Amino acid sequence: MKNLFIHRDSQRGVKGTYEWLVDEVKELGEALEGSDKESTESEFADVFAWLSSLANLMDVDLEKAALNKYPYKCPKCSCSPCKCPLN
Amino acid sequence: MKNLFIHRDSQRGVKGTYEWLVDEVKELGEALEGSDKESTESEFADVFAWLSSLANLMDVDLEKAALNKYPYKCPKCSCSPCKCPLN
Repeated sequence: MKNLFIHRDSQRGVKGTYEWLVDEVKELGEALEGSDKESTESEFADVFAWLSSLANLMDVDLEKAALNKYPYKCPKCSCSPCKCPLN
Repeated sequence: MKNLFIHRDSQRGVKGTYEWLVDEVKELGEALEGSDKESTESEFADVFAWLSSLANLMDVDLEKAALNKYPYKCPKCSCSPCKCPLN
């Protein structure tokens, strides 16, 4: 994602890229209400792509950040699988 | 993420999990306006975690969906790195 889009993402900037992410999350919400699996997968891919673009702009390693906070156990009480009360 | 949270995610359901994702995206937006790198990374991790939870509930392989739509080239015209006009 970084090699592919970093030039355009840099031109657009953090604010513009965040706004695109928000729009893609809305589109994912609409796709979830439908029954078209292909369209749903495509919207998941878009949200992931824009989240990656934003992380690249902020110089954040998304995978590292996720594994740091969620190292195969619940971040609240370390239970695994998570058995915390539903929120 | 699936092993860790699928039980709770299933209890919460698609709609509730999507709403959490939307909230986490808002929190990421707030973190982006600050200057705390650790907090920003934590919010990126949360958005990724909730996106993964939602994908698991919908039986969507997030990595596969992303690579399917973005196979190291622009999905619109196959340019790489992407040189499409800025949107």
